Amino acid sequence: MIIDCHGHYTTAPKELQKYRDAQIAALKDAKHAPSKGALAIRDDQIRESLENAQLRIQRERGTDLTIFSPRAGGMGHHVGNATTSRYWSEICNDLIHRVCTLYPDNFIGVCQLPQSPGVRPDNCIAELERCVNELGFIGCNLNPDPSGGYWTDPPLTDKWWYPFYEKLVELDVPAMVHVSASCNPNFHHTGAHYINADTTAFMQFITSDLFKDFPTLKFVIPHGGGAVPYHWGRYRGLAQDMGRPPLKELLLNNVFFDTCVYHLPGIELLLKVIPADNILFASEVVGAVRGIDPETGCYYDDTKRYIDAIDWLSAEDREKIFHGNARKVYRRFAARGAKR
Amino acid sequence: MIIDCHGHYTTAPKELQKYRDAQIAALKDAKHAPSKGALAIRDDQIRESLENAQLRIQRERGTDLTIFSPRAGGMGHHVGNATTSRYWSEICNDLIHRVCTLYPDNFIGVCQLPQSPGVRPDNCIAELERCVNELGFIGCNLNPDPSGGYWTDPPLTDKWWYPFYEKLVELDVPAMVHVSASCNPNFHHTGAHYINADTTAFMQFITSDLFKDFPTLKFVIPHGGGAVPYHWGRYRGLAQDMGRPPLKELLLNNVFFDTCVYHLPGIELLLKVIPADNILFASEVVGAVRGIDPETGCYYDDTKRYIDAIDWLSAEDREKIFHGNARKVYRRFAARGAKR
Repeated sequence: MIIDCHGHYTTAPKELQKYRDAQIAALKDAKHAPSKGALAIRDDQIRESLENAQLRIQRERGTDLTIFSPRAGGMGHHVGNATTSRYWSEICNDLIHRVCTLYPDNFIGVCQLPQSPGVRPDNCIAELERCVNELGFIGCNLNPDPSGGYWTDPPLTDKWWYPFYEKLVELDVPAMVHVSASCNPNFHHTGAHYINADTTAFMQFITSDLFKDFPTLKFVIPHGGGAVPYHWGRYRGLAQDMGRPPLKELLLNNVFFDTCVYHLPGIELLLKVIPADNILFASEVVGAVRGIDPETGCYYDDTKRYIDAIDWLSAEDREKIFHGNARKVYRRFAARGAKR
Repeated sequence: MIIDCHGHYTTAPKELQKYRDAQIAALKDAKHAPSKGALAIRDDQIRESLENAQLRIQRERGTDLTIFSPRAGGMGHHVGNATTSRYWSEICNDLIHRVCTLYPDNFIGVCQLPQSPGVRPDNCIAELERCVNELGFIGCNLNPDPSGGYWTDPPLTDKWWYPFYEKLVELDVPAMVHVSASCNPNFHHTGAHYINADTTAFMQFITSDLFKDFPTLKFVIPHGGGAVPYHWGRYRGLAQDMGRPPLKELLLNNVFFDTCVYHLPGIELLLKVIPADNILFASEVVGAVRGIDPETGCYYDDTKRYIDAIDWLSAEDREKIFHGNARKVYRRFAARGAKR
């Protein structure tokens, strides 16, 4: 079995974007209190949006199940206020739930959170509980920078986030560290902001005792861990210079990397320096890069091919990367699997 | 000959920091106009600060010459205003000039710029000219985020920077893209802010026609190019999806990476995916990581060892990386070499 731990609903029917556009337009009208409104999308539209995209790709590439969440670039936590974010998150999460209900063998849900810059993350607890307890979701995407590129909220290691972490631990679900669109012109969203956030979060974890406070809290750092594996020596060295424990001991019980790295040499490096126990297969399809690499004739984001091409990877480690670690990190997935 | 293109004067006599502390303290006193003041450091203090540090390391590791600039973390462009930055840059650059005068075979200067958030980079032209024309410097460090981690100035590809680029082209000197300390608690300076800035700048270059406007402008992206080589497939794919030319054509006449990557697998990746013509040897000693890697028994930042260990690197490419490319990018170095 192959589990892709990182897929977003980037192909949702256009009604979703229309809802969002109307929601944003309504923000300009100060006279009216915002209302949630509703989304009218039929099941056949959902089917159509997936059949020739994520589902076709699953079949073609031989992956079985995608851990699926709303479009990351669409979360837009910097837009409006906490109420805007709440309505939008509920709409997006409900849509993911419909996908998972229509295709229970192909998708399992991870939720967007109603974060808002300057608002305590406690405000996300209700939606997390609803998604996990009522919709059967197995994790969430946590945005370390709800401002969208100005980084005005406290680091992930600040007590600011602790009540939310308590709930993650209680529900036994991990968070993927994932920013949304950038409204800062310095940062291209998929080319800089995403990768920077991954790198930033990892370095925050190095400097803190977060995992002493939450020994079972788990984070997945997407996009192959940002710059981290490439600079693994730098991170080991920085931790050592600061008198921190070795990285393995300090955070590798709690921090995991996905395989969204779109060329063979990058995947080779990842598998060489990061223990196989800490790597989860992912491709982020349909995602940031959609073309075919002229150097290989294959899709850039067909990350399974790269892993398949690495002949020194043991069968045991391959199993861990393709599904074992996902079951370990997304513990509610394992529970659900056992039940079915 | 081996040229290290990235060294900072991190071991300067403590009088330098005392000067800076006094300068910062004086900012609180609104009654007095700031004065430049002076720095009293003797030649023997400078010698002492280098003999058992950068010079010892050059001898031990077999490198010959370091392209040397003021401490990057100390630039602190977010502190005070443009006048603060001007005085501080002049003091720091003059000190680098003294180092280069005392040890002309070991160091050649690159300058700090008197940048200040929200101030047009034109204000750096006079100091750049002074350093290049009067002090014999061969490049500068350009900070893409003078705010120190809030990224409030325009991207490097904005016309905001163009008058400064015109001067770089006229003087025929490259800029290393290098941020300073982060005053944003989200970003550890050497572990996140530096690496993020490298990644960010590269992605800015992909999305613009900067090098059509300035075909001879040259940038060195330090720290092995941030996350870029690790995600080379992502960047090739993003450019392709956006209808941009292949990266080689789009920017590899103008953008170069140094080798400040502190483990063998990272250096292997860099040399595998980035053309040898675009890689300049560097170690950033005495810099971000000062310890010995227990896995190898060698200093993390002894990057020459990693390159020496790569047996598939051709002699020709090795020469390019160790000195040929530095002479090509820092064209005033070549001119100076010819003269001596």
